[in-house]
Amino acid sequence: MAFDRLIENIIEKQNPTVAGLDPKLDYVPASVKDACFAQYGKTLEGAAAALLAFNKAIIDQICDIVPAIKPQAAYYEMYGWQGVRALAETIAYAQQKGMFVMTDGKRNDIGTTMEAYATAHLGTTDVAGEAIDAFGADALTVNGYLGTDGIQPLVKICQEKDKGIFVLVKTSNPSSGELQDLKLTNGASVYEQMGRMCEQWGEALPGKYGYSGVGAVVGATYPEQLKEMREKAPHTFFLVPGYGAQGGGAQDAKNAFDKNGLGAIINSSRGIMCAWKKQGLTEDDFAAAARSEALRMKADILSVIGKIEA
Amino acid sequence: MAFDRLIENIIEKQNPTVAGLDPKLDYVPASVKDACFAQYGKTLEGAAAALLAFNKAIIDQICDIVPAIKPQAAYYEMYGWQGVRALAETIAYAQQKGMFVMTDGKRNDIGTTMEAYATAHLGTTDVAGEAIDAFGADALTVNGYLGTDGIQPLVKICQEKDKGIFVLVKTSNPSSGELQDLKLTNGASVYEQMGRMCEQWGEALPGKYGYSGVGAVVGATYPEQLKEMREKAPHTFFLVPGYGAQGGGAQDAKNAFDKNGLGAIINSSRGIMCAWKKQGLTEDDFAAAARSEALRMKADILSVIGKIEA
Repeated sequence: MAFDRLIENIIEKQNPTVAGLDPKLDYVPASVKDACFAQYGKTLEGAAAALLAFNKAIIDQICDIVPAIKPQAAYYEMYGWQGVRALAETIAYAQQKGMFVMTDGKRNDIGTTMEAYATAHLGTTDVAGEAIDAFGADALTVNGYLGTDGIQPLVKICQEKDKGIFVLVKTSNPSSGELQDLKLTNGASVYEQMGRMCEQWGEALPGKYGYSGVGAVVGATYPEQLKEMREKAPHTFFLVPGYGAQGGGAQDAKNAFDKNGLGAIINSSRGIMCAWKKQGLTEDDFAAAARSEALRMKADILSVIGKIEA
Repeated sequence: MAFDRLIENIIEKQNPTVAGLDPKLDYVPASVKDACFAQYGKTLEGAAAALLAFNKAIIDQICDIVPAIKPQAAYYEMYGWQGVRALAETIAYAQQKGMFVMTDGKRNDIGTTMEAYATAHLGTTDVAGEAIDAFGADALTVNGYLGTDGIQPLVKICQEKDKGIFVLVKTSNPSSGELQDLKLTNGASVYEQMGRMCEQWGEALPGKYGYSGVGAVVGATYPEQLKEMREKAPHTFFLVPGYGAQGGGAQDAKNAFDKNGLGAIINSSRGIMCAWKKQGLTEDDFAAAARSEALRMKADILSVIGKIEA
């Protein structure tokens, strides 16, 4: 099961964090951009080449210490199909370097269409008998608003291809509560109901460390809800955004973990990508700064959860 | 406002329907595929070329009678970045032919990331001072689970660029009720609450025909809820899936319209793309069959709503 692989990678590296690769052209040093624009012009091709070079440099610097990356699809789509090609190439490069890749796409649709998304991001596309990975990530974030038949096609591909999903439960943004915190007449909040559904969907994908292949996104910016959901969804592995740039700290993130330091992975995106700014370095030092920040973040999280053990 | 343009196109053509372009390689005639595979091999490039040729042939046949297309992003992503290029090329081609394009992506994320999605699909990407359309659709479907700050960046770009969005309210799939039909303690169902939020978000994008630039997706497969939401969300334009292949008929879809025959656009995807099967024709007749089906569907909807007037 895919999250068993992720958990083993986390234990081996003693690092329950994931680097979010959400690159904007603004984050890429002028030296990298200039080289790409010289080759491709000030075009989407040029921009995509710059993003890919930026990502590869960060992956090279962190692949021995960070178990996973989380590329955010939006930032690649912003640079057109050329950017989407950079997403595919980033995924392949990180996997070659031994990293677990979770594509952050928050995809959702009805069953037949969700089959297409599942095939695209986690499965294998059939082209006249040739089986081709379109994007081939290890996990995908999804939105469960459409209910079970929007999730079932993903579960099927996760079973067949050893992949996982993370369903949005309680998101990290300021207005997440507008819908998610509303109380239902069954006594649960909307996010709690979504957590219950994750526990049910996960029964089809059991894992050997107690966590299923259906994870949940729960933000570090809501530590009380994180604590609540850790108790109420004991078989659901958490992807936790909101640490760092969005304001969550290690003490907040701590609530995501079980007593063995398992059960969650904490994301940092801008904190890693733009680390050179906080470290008083130049933009050309972005990759080394990303490594320093990844090590600092690891130490920060471990300082509150201790040794991670199966 | 973008939906004013859409409404004017609907009135001019007396046709409140949209053709869903959700192409799978299985739908494309062997003659088209063989030509593409001969040129590009049995690759994602070859598959994407086949999808694009298929789409263009349908667009050529329907652009004078159907006001809009709705390409579903999942089916393009299934064929990798090459498929995503075919999506961009399909959008551009349909717009050249005067069609309104609504990309069905059901995108959703936190504010900063939603800015990237909004830029990608509706806005203009800045590449070192060059302003480039990445995908450039006229409207995008989105999921409102994250609340206002996931919608605000879209509204801003809709204001600046004359675009629109459709927020998922009550989806057409069998399990949509698992979450969407649950009752909240404020007396509303989850989908009704989402409809209220659409009305609020739409205040920033008023339209001259009474409908704002924040529309809603409400399925024809739930005619009672469609009727309820037409009353409760009077300024919200509806994108209505579920007609045809999913089981909804004209009488079901009728509930989406106001007394002038405005307020909604009804989608058919497989019904249009695979029309040759029902018409007893050969696969090579797919485009002409799509036109016949588009005309039949138009007549079917008009038979229950009458003349469409502003």
